[in-house]
Amino acid sequence: MTFPAPLTGVVPPVCTPLTPEREVDVPSLLRLVDHLVGAGVHGLFVLGSTSEAAFLTDAQRRRVVETVAGHLGGQLPVLAGAIDMTTPRVLDHVRAVTAAGAEAVVVTAPFYTRTHPSEIVHHYRRIAALSPVPVIAYDIPVAVHTKLPAELVLGLAGDGVLAGIKDSSGDLAAFRELVTGARAHPGFGVLTGSELIADAALALGADGAVPGLANVDPHGYVRMYRQCRAGDWAGARAEQERLCALFGLTAVGDPARMGRGSSALGAFKAALHLRGVIDCPVTAEPQVPLSGEETEKVAKFLACAGLL
Amino acid sequence: MTFPAPLTGVVPPVCTPLTPEREVDVPSLLRLVDHLVGAGVHGLFVLGSTSEAAFLTDAQRRRVVETVAGHLGGQLPVLAGAIDMTTPRVLDHVRAVTAAGAEAVVVTAPFYTRTHPSEIVHHYRRIAALSPVPVIAYDIPVAVHTKLPAELVLGLAGDGVLAGIKDSSGDLAAFRELVTGARAHPGFGVLTGSELIADAALALGADGAVPGLANVDPHGYVRMYRQCRAGDWAGARAEQERLCALFGLTAVGDPARMGRGSSALGAFKAALHLRGVIDCPVTAEPQVPLSGEETEKVAKFLACAGLL
Amino acid sequence: MTFPAPLTGVVPPVCTPLTPEREVDVPSLLRLVDHLVGAGVHGLFVLGSTSEAAFLTDAQRRRVVETVAGHLGGQLPVLAGAIDMTTPRVLDHVRAVTAAGAEAVVVTAPFYTRTHPSEIVHHYRRIAALSPVPVIAYDIPVAVHTKLPAELVLGLAGDGVLAGIKDSSGDLAAFRELVTGARAHPGFGVLTGSELIADAALALGADGAVPGLANVDPHGYVRMYRQCRAGDWAGARAEQERLCALFGLTAVGDPARMGRGSSALGAFKAALHLRGVIDCPVTAEPQVPLSGEETEKVAKFLACAGLL
Amino acid sequence: MTFPAPLTGVVPPVCTPLTPEREVDVPSLLRLVDHLVGAGVHGLFVLGSTSEAAFLTDAQRRRVVETVAGHLGGQLPVLAGAIDMTTPRVLDHVRAVTAAGAEAVVVTAPFYTRTHPSEIVHHYRRIAALSPVPVIAYDIPVAVHTKLPAELVLGLAGDGVLAGIKDSSGDLAAFRELVTGARAHPGFGVLTGSELIADAALALGADGAVPGLANVDPHGYVRMYRQCRAGDWAGARAEQERLCALFGLTAVGDPARMGRGSSALGAFKAALHLRGVIDCPVTAEPQVPLSGEETEKVAKFLACAGLL
Repeated sequence: MTFPAPLTGVVPPVCTPLTPEREVDVPSLLRLVDHLVGAGVHGLFVLGSTSEAAFLTDAQRRRVVETVAGHLGGQLPVLAGAIDMTTPRVLDHVRAVTAAGAEAVVVTAPFYTRTHPSEIVHHYRRIAALSPVPVIAYDIPVAVHTKLPAELVLGLAGDGVLAGIKDSSGDLAAFRELVTGARAHPGFGVLTGSELIADAALALGADGAVPGLANVDPHGYVRMYRQCRAGDWAGARAEQERLCALFGLTAVGDPARMGRGSSALGAFKAALHLRGVIDCPVTAEPQVPLSGEETEKVAKFLACAGLL
Repeated sequence: MTFPAPLTGVVPPVCTPLTPEREVDVPSLLRLVDHLVGAGVHGLFVLGSTSEAAFLTDAQRRRVVETVAGHLGGQLPVLAGAIDMTTPRVLDHVRAVTAAGAEAVVVTAPFYTRTHPSEIVHHYRRIAALSPVPVIAYDIPVAVHTKLPAELVLGLAGDGVLAGIKDSSGDLAAFRELVTGARAHPGFGVLTGSELIADAALALGADGAVPGLANVDPHGYVRMYRQCRAGDWAGARAEQERLCALFGLTAVGDPARMGRGSSALGAFKAALHLRGVIDCPVTAEPQVPLSGEETEKVAKFLACAGLL
Repeated sequence: MTFPAPLTGVVPPVCTPLTPEREVDVPSLLRLVDHLVGAGVHGLFVLGSTSEAAFLTDAQRRRVVETVAGHLGGQLPVLAGAIDMTTPRVLDHVRAVTAAGAEAVVVTAPFYTRTHPSEIVHHYRRIAALSPVPVIAYDIPVAVHTKLPAELVLGLAGDGVLAGIKDSSGDLAAFRELVTGARAHPGFGVLTGSELIADAALALGADGAVPGLANVDPHGYVRMYRQCRAGDWAGARAEQERLCALFGLTAVGDPARMGRGSSALGAFKAALHLRGVIDCPVTAEPQVPLSGEETEKVAKFLACAGLL
Repeated sequence: MTFPAPLTGVVPPVCTPLTPEREVDVPSLLRLVDHLVGAGVHGLFVLGSTSEAAFLTDAQRRRVVETVAGHLGGQLPVLAGAIDMTTPRVLDHVRAVTAAGAEAVVVTAPFYTRTHPSEIVHHYRRIAALSPVPVIAYDIPVAVHTKLPAELVLGLAGDGVLAGIKDSSGDLAAFRELVTGARAHPGFGVLTGSELIADAALALGADGAVPGLANVDPHGYVRMYRQCRAGDWAGARAEQERLCALFGLTAVGDPARMGRGSSALGAFKAALHLRGVIDCPVTAEPQVPLSGEETEKVAKFLACAGLL
């Protein structure tokens, strides 16, 4: 298939189900993909932060892409993260994930190293020059500790280096600058990574959303996306507020015992397990697992949202 | 050889010379190792931040360790960074670098993901359980955006999980807490990563130093280390102040054009090139190279320090 | 007048015009107030960040409140910032500004000192207990380096301690939590401090907006507010996008020469001077003034927005 | 008296004893001053962070300076903080504290507002031009969220704008740059604000120390200062390590219940109360008081240090 220009719609960052031994659980992954596709999503993003890409070995990453791309067979666009610290290491991942079937790669600013705007520009230019598929920028300051400046992104959009952006910065004012600036670059897709203000992002002109919570409730996000496209802002707001309430499940983990990542990813997987989509809710090391009590709280959130 | 317990002395984080095509320049790397060993250093740390580990592909990382460990043949301890985001990925590097001859591995807190002290503890425990060689913690908040708490490190020292720490936090008060606390754990090595206050760190009881600038002037750091060990604090201070002046070369890069990393690593390599140790001063992508004018400034710093 | 519960509408944070000698320019301030009131704003907030409250002496602060409150005579609600580091110092300001006629006080979390949620709660409780007028929280992490947690604010709303919040955090997801949570506390007003996503904030249920740029174009914000209230989301979005373009004037200052505060406040005052509202565009020390060339850029922004 | 150029020695930042009603407790303050002077300190710094300057009203600040300066009568230099957000407000404090007898003023970078190096320079120049007494820079990034660059400080030292610096940044490498750079400006005093590495700071050439813990154990810091001056580095290190152990009292406060400021200032005052120096350990609002159990822990630290 030709990769859509721009990419639009709901494109969930797909969780990576693991076995109790922490290997990729292929049957569960396939069920999760079917669960998402059946809900009407418009694409799939594997090896993102929600996919625990930071925790997966290179072999596991390859397995995930092969599994999902092979299963979908071009039915929907498959984006894959190429998450690593710098250009040469990212390029190795680009080669691996495109060989495994990814139709676009998603790339952050350099991290671990202290970087600079001119280095970020060179990073994306170099990767785009060598990538066989479109490159989508991934703006996730909470992980890489740099915010991609809108001007930089739009410059690279104008030069055809970037095909789109997933914005997980939480900064809607900067996001708006991308959306309005991107009107000059019609094939460039601007997608929000927010679970909580996706309606607002779509209202101001975003092309789509990449919400981690869509693993748990893909129908909700697809419904909201359609309401937004139809101009039913009141309906979209009500749906979004329901999803915001559901998002409370990401905070069930005791902050004295675990980080927010452990809590959120653990809760997504617990919810998928409780809903019967995946076989095992385990997360990768060194994340702390949810307790039984915390998992019960996840179940309550699901029940309140009518998902159990 | 048996890995020293504790590790002591000057242990430079070895730069990784690259060819113009950005492959590992093995002959230059061997000359650099000889340059350091000839100056009397007490160990070598490859694949650290100064080694551009964040920029090297897995194949290049392996090549570096094989080259250095093979060349040294047990003459001096060789530590290798296993720098990656989380436990499973770090474990892959541990396997690779120990297979290639590393006698200890150096491991940071998880990064990219949001982490928590209990997760950091589990991370180190798991890695130590599976590593065939001693594990040394690498505290580098500027890169991983977490500071390792002294209490956490000392707890892991007491349990035999960690064999030492390289502290690149710049926080001498916290470093002192490590040094005094480590007296209860005699085999545990506490080393500073500072180029600028290594004399102060040694004065308060550090076991050694891992200064990037020792690539450029290993004799200076070895001399200062011996002065400290001999209680010649005035001599050590004078030597340290000379090295502080030399360190000014890391700031030659124009901050409007490049980040501090590009400037510092570019200057180390330019200095090694100017001193005739390596063939080519190129740094890995996406770093910005020094201009001719900036390189001339490096030459002036070398001349002032009597190194040219 | 009774202070509205909740406070709603467009409530500009009023700039403080200064004479060339940097005293409060009372005639200019009165003209500015008339300019805002004439545009149909719903209240005025003096001594906020946009008012340069951080730069005004106690005598100047008093003068500003007396001038504005005296001039308005109860026609519109007048809120005054009581901006200082901790409870006892804030209480002194509360006394002063209410004596001068303020009908509500606007109070940040403690700053300079390292604080804690329980201390923030005690801070607001103590101030509310002693204030003769309603207390409105001011969430401005860029200034005080603490984000007010939504749960904390809603708890204080429920207890009647706080009458509302001005949220200048830029975090619309957290803002939404306030808006939806505040439905349980009908008199509590939730206002955004954003210039750039006020339409989005109103769309998700905000009571009003406190945009600094409303000094320059109060008609624009009043128009947008009315469009939002009428459900004309397309019209509101177009108006907001026009205001976003105008907001570009806050970046005219050369970042090599001045901070963003100097640039933004200097540009607001330059615009008011160019529009004939105030006599002198000077800002308080130690801010850097705009150059002639930078002021010309402000004029171009005004011209593009049809304001000159 | 003429203010010493450079200022040297141990200059404690004097705690401000309060009555149960949270007014300045003048008799306790006088006893505290006598306790410090009797131990041989070389100057006193009132209205610093340890003095709870951020919490004291203008009237209380004036009272503190009058009390201490009046009591000392020129016997020792009295420095006073003029802690406020920006130039005009700081200038008001400069007038007040010098009228009350302060012989030097201690001034931070601007805070609350976003600042810029050129604005910081202008801030200090303006204050120095109008201050009747020497101006000492106060580098305290934890409070003001800006680090004073060494180059900037040394430039102002060279121009006679600044008479010295109290460095509470914790960054000993940057401190060393000040110390070595200040050799070109003989009257400029470089003092560390660290309790924990004062020996290291003195070893590399600092003129003195301003340690909050010296309220509790002034004899210890005076002893260590004399050892450093006499070149007895082993003795100084042992004394410093004893003081580091004592400093553990600042962490007695439960972090779930209070911030680090409440814990540290509460512990200093609890210790002074337990030692019989002040009548009441209360701290200013909104700080959380230590519990009885926490106070007992303070007592244990004192006992271990031989101070009870």
